[in-house]
Amino acid sequence: MMEKLLVDLGERSYPIFITQNILGNTEWVSPYVKGKQVAIVTNETIAPLYLETVQQAFMGFDCISIILPDGEQYKSLAGINPILDRLMQEQLDRKVTLVALGGGVIGDMTGFAAAIYRRGVNFIQIPTTLLAQVDSSVGGKTGVNHPLGKNMIGAFYQPQCVMIDTNVLSTLEDRQLYAGIAEVIKYGLINDSVFFNWLENNIEQLLQRDAQALAYAIKISCQDKANIVAADEKESGKRALLNLGHTFGHAIETAMGYDGKWLHGEAIAVGMLMAAELSLLHDWITEEEVQRIENILQKAHLPTVPPKITVKQFLSLMAGDKKVLDGQLHLVLLKRIGKAVVTKEFDPELLQQVLVKYA
Amino acid sequence: MMEKLLVDLGERSYPIFITQNILGNTEWVSPYVKGKQVAIVTNETIAPLYLETVQQAFMGFDCISIILPDGEQYKSLAGINPILDRLMQEQLDRKVTLVALGGGVIGDMTGFAAAIYRRGVNFIQIPTTLLAQVDSSVGGKTGVNHPLGKNMIGAFYQPQCVMIDTNVLSTLEDRQLYAGIAEVIKYGLINDSVFFNWLENNIEQLLQRDAQALAYAIKISCQDKANIVAADEKESGKRALLNLGHTFGHAIETAMGYDGKWLHGEAIAVGMLMAAELSLLHDWITEEEVQRIENILQKAHLPTVPPKITVKQFLSLMAGDKKVLDGQLHLVLLKRIGKAVVTKEFDPELLQQVLVKYA
Repeated sequence: MMEKLLVDLGERSYPIFITQNILGNTEWVSPYVKGKQVAIVTNETIAPLYLETVQQAFMGFDCISIILPDGEQYKSLAGINPILDRLMQEQLDRKVTLVALGGGVIGDMTGFAAAIYRRGVNFIQIPTTLLAQVDSSVGGKTGVNHPLGKNMIGAFYQPQCVMIDTNVLSTLEDRQLYAGIAEVIKYGLINDSVFFNWLENNIEQLLQRDAQALAYAIKISCQDKANIVAADEKESGKRALLNLGHTFGHAIETAMGYDGKWLHGEAIAVGMLMAAELSLLHDWITEEEVQRIENILQKAHLPTVPPKITVKQFLSLMAGDKKVLDGQLHLVLLKRIGKAVVTKEFDPELLQQVLVKYA
Repeated sequence: MMEKLLVDLGERSYPIFITQNILGNTEWVSPYVKGKQVAIVTNETIAPLYLETVQQAFMGFDCISIILPDGEQYKSLAGINPILDRLMQEQLDRKVTLVALGGGVIGDMTGFAAAIYRRGVNFIQIPTTLLAQVDSSVGGKTGVNHPLGKNMIGAFYQPQCVMIDTNVLSTLEDRQLYAGIAEVIKYGLINDSVFFNWLENNIEQLLQRDAQALAYAIKISCQDKANIVAADEKESGKRALLNLGHTFGHAIETAMGYDGKWLHGEAIAVGMLMAAELSLLHDWITEEEVQRIENILQKAHLPTVPPKITVKQFLSLMAGDKKVLDGQLHLVLLKRIGKAVVTKEFDPELLQQVLVKYA
């Protein structure tokens, strides 16, 4: 069975496929490769598992592979050089198609390399983590981290297609699975209380990697994200809702130094709970709702307490976040489970209280 | 007098102003700055001459200045870091406007920094060399060099406006003036034989920096470029005509190492003559036309012979050029003065002959 969703962006529209057992199949690729040249970008963890299979799919093309070290700490401007250097050495031209085979880091870096190599070449996303499948591979946000802030350098650049093969989740580490579930939970919290209820009832099946449950959760997540991205590609409004938990979470990630001690999904899990606590202090949501959020995060083996960061450091890192506009911090907070809002109308003293509680 | 031209690119359209004595004037800036924050990017040569004046124009905003070292050798991916680092340190947000105050290198680097900082912020071009005024500040090509090829890393990213104050040409070095005239001559060769005739008759006035002659040459050049860019923003066709002389010229620049021994306009001058010679060997243009091209380049004190580069090195560098598609080198050649074509239908042996002649 193959599900097909569309990210509707006019001439930049593209399909997301959700299916199984497709990675070595040559048939799906040709509509999405315009020239003769293909460069697969992956990392040392994924290459032994899936590179050979994916090379099969592209065997009708002049295909090279670029294998990067694995880890968020390589997601920097300088970390793009190994990709660009190799593309230049091989003299690959403007019709080359880059293929991102990996998790969020590989997708973000490959997409950004595609955006800036010869001022832009095509690329395809083959996400291999749950987090990348439900979030980072969809919507065209590409880029790298700056030492002073996560994802601060990048481009909005859409792929030709996203190919999600749920089989790859069988080799995913437990901790990576949990981190992906954090982003799935996020879609429920933002604008889909029915999906949040479904997640409460099906969290065990997801943790046990039940294929049907995973495929359903991925489909709903991608559909939710595709709708939001289609309405606001460059984040001038509604798309900022997708950052629920991210202002707190990015502060955690930046403070911890991108070296894998905290995965993105883990930081976002804590960030969503902190956003919920702040919403509670404004009387926008109930204690029971906060409890439901904490419960599902705990069931998914996700952290609910941040690492040791001082209030001052938290505030300073949050002030550097992308959601600051004209010097004013904007946060994504909850009006209820299933309804998030982007707002600068929060009480700074209550924010302080939340940070003190967790510091 | 203020001339206003429009680069017509739908929602990315923007004006080019050609005028005098405007740099310190506060009135022109406000329509093109959307937030409260402005960062002027310039270099050590331009800063003492014009930075204070331009700061006056932006005095209604929170304005910082970033002063880079001067030279094409800093136009690299790593060379962008001083801009990005400072923007991050100052926690400038997505509404910041970058102002490129300088020649082509500053414009290309600042535009690229604007394209990738927080996935894209606004920028304004204030070009201070003739070459930047007639070419690099118009059309949205931004980017940096790769050790293996010029302008290979970058983005198509349009400014909010281009402000050309011809007064700044009074402080331009002679050699930079000549290099700019090379690009002006290019527009005549590509598609404007009337303008080429005018240039033959007015080259002395341009060399003497006659204000009226310069303003006219800038206006015609910008208009020619704006028309071509409007027809083909991302260079899928006609825009490649603007690369007349560039495949040869970039090979010269890459071989010489971007350290200022050869200015871009100088390399392009030789490149145009080599393209003319190759066109002559195909019997597309006459010896008299080649002679006219050589004459005007010589009158403008531009080189007409490349530096010592072997045929092999030339071919290898040309093979890495952006104009290679699916392994096939495309060249911009002349059918007559005032009519250039992009073609892969040239005789490789005649190309070899031209390279041997100049090697």
